[in-house]
Amino acid sequence: MNDDLKDSFWKDARIAIVGCGAVGTYYGAMLARAGADVHFLLRSDYAHVKEHGLQIFSHDGDFDLPQVQAYSRAEDIGACDLVIVAIKATANDVLPKVLLPLINENTAILTLQNGMGNAEFLARHFGGERVLGGACFVCINRLSPGVVQNFKHGLIALGEFSGAPTQRTRDLVELWKSSGVPSQLEESLQALLWRKLTWNVPFNGLAIAAGGVDVSCILADEELAKLARALMGELIAAAAANGVNIESSYIDFQMDRTAVMGEYKPSSLIDFQAGRAVEVEAIFGEPYRRAKAAHVATPRLEMLYALLRSLCAVG
Amino acid sequence: MNDDLKDSFWKDARIAIVGCGAVGTYYGAMLARAGADVHFLLRSDYAHVKEHGLQIFSHDGDFDLPQVQAYSRAEDIGACDLVIVAIKATANDVLPKVLLPLINENTAILTLQNGMGNAEFLARHFGGERVLGGACFVCINRLSPGVVQNFKHGLIALGEFSGAPTQRTRDLVELWKSSGVPSQLEESLQALLWRKLTWNVPFNGLAIAAGGVDVSCILADEELAKLARALMGELIAAAAANGVNIESSYIDFQMDRTAVMGEYKPSSLIDFQAGRAVEVEAIFGEPYRRAKAAHVATPRLEMLYALLRSLCAVG
Repeated sequence: MNDDLKDSFWKDARIAIVGCGAVGTYYGAMLARAGADVHFLLRSDYAHVKEHGLQIFSHDGDFDLPQVQAYSRAEDIGACDLVIVAIKATANDVLPKVLLPLINENTAILTLQNGMGNAEFLARHFGGERVLGGACFVCINRLSPGVVQNFKHGLIALGEFSGAPTQRTRDLVELWKSSGVPSQLEESLQALLWRKLTWNVPFNGLAIAAGGVDVSCILADEELAKLARALMGELIAAAAANGVNIESSYIDFQMDRTAVMGEYKPSSLIDFQAGRAVEVEAIFGEPYRRAKAAHVATPRLEMLYALLRSLCAVG
Repeated sequence: MNDDLKDSFWKDARIAIVGCGAVGTYYGAMLARAGADVHFLLRSDYAHVKEHGLQIFSHDGDFDLPQVQAYSRAEDIGACDLVIVAIKATANDVLPKVLLPLINENTAILTLQNGMGNAEFLARHFGGERVLGGACFVCINRLSPGVVQNFKHGLIALGEFSGAPTQRTRDLVELWKSSGVPSQLEESLQALLWRKLTWNVPFNGLAIAAGGVDVSCILADEELAKLARALMGELIAAAAANGVNIESSYIDFQMDRTAVMGEYKPSSLIDFQAGRAVEVEAIFGEPYRRAKAAHVATPRLEMLYALLRSLCAVG
């Protein structure tokens, strides 16, 4: 490990990555490249990654990891200090069983999953005090087994489920930074997730609902761009009623940030077009339910949720 | 012609049907079966219909018309007393040229097209006093060239573009009735079209936007059924601001009426799935613009319009 981390909570930590889609693979590979003791738990890509390792194409530098610690069973990894959960939220029901061999009384669990409700799910099953949450502000796609491309950005923001950050989360920010991943500490995980959703809801949602369009098409279509802004406005109102203040200028920030992404296809669209499960409940259903519980009208979010529920069941 | 019509404005009328999709074919065939002098102007189906005539499957009785007066050029029909326009609204720009040979100073034009703006278009080009508008409350699909199935209902409601009905429209109602088509007179064409849209907007729209679902799926999905009702509510508010009062119980009426349609696919969905043009502007864009002009918020209609514009351009 990097010398900067010699007093770190995470010095010599055993780290498990559960779920090696784009996010798990990329962030796990960044840690492994920096010398961390990373154990990848894979399912369908296990044989390929075991033999060929990982290959990362990134806007800030490509690299290969020809050999990584790859596993097909959690039992073969055993207890870790940090378990990073990066499976799709639609598969959460496997986690209670899959995580069990990875966890001892001191294990922290970091969910990097999309949407809301994932930290709550882990807290219900494993206790909230060990649960951290992160949001990845990154344009990333899995190209093939073990091969990921990071087109843009990369920041990982971290908070704790149970409240304000503790030293372990501060140290985890430093671990990411020392691994070459921009990282920042969040005082409130809920605030972080609401802010992340102001992007995921309009862009992941409209990319599918408007017929399979990339983010540049949404920005270029006057009606869709207006709709994206209106959806962000609804999320900001819902967040406010849930105790999270997001300034309205954040809408411009998100639109500007998206403009530099080019013809990026959000991950939900890629999943949808490949016939894979889409995280409809985590990204759309959960914020809609929280808005409704707080008596905030979110007609566009509600409509998008209704359409996606149907589209992703049919599609 | 039927003896009941001996004093009718439309006695011995020459009638042209422009556009032989489901609606033009079915209603033209009903008139022709009753002995009216009906001239069908066809494009792609001309050769087939010329040779084989028309075949109607209907919930109230099947029938064949082995020989009909079929034409491929309006010039070969010549001036008529009544021109019934049943082409897709997306093709309206052909009408100024196509209708010209069919029209003399006394010709009335009846548009049976979906959505709003069609009567206005005809009035701009041919003068408003000759323009009538109708709405067909029918579940009808074209099965193949010259072959149409009417699954349910069939009422045709008629009004005049320029104001209250005159005798010619009263007599036209009688002509339809004497041809076996339920028909009723409408004091206000605009009111008729807004009421019709309370069905077309949610059901034609959601059938496409929710991923290619029939009306029974929309009714069976709690979120989609709620959304259909909310869209109707927006249309009722927009209609009210445009001087048209629709009682809110009309929503229940429409939902109940739809429940007996079974697994009916709205015509826009069939067009969409076949890669044909969808009447996005007439059914969705025009009422949205009228709502906006009247300062009525219709977030769901606006969103549906934005999605369909994109879907039907992409799809």
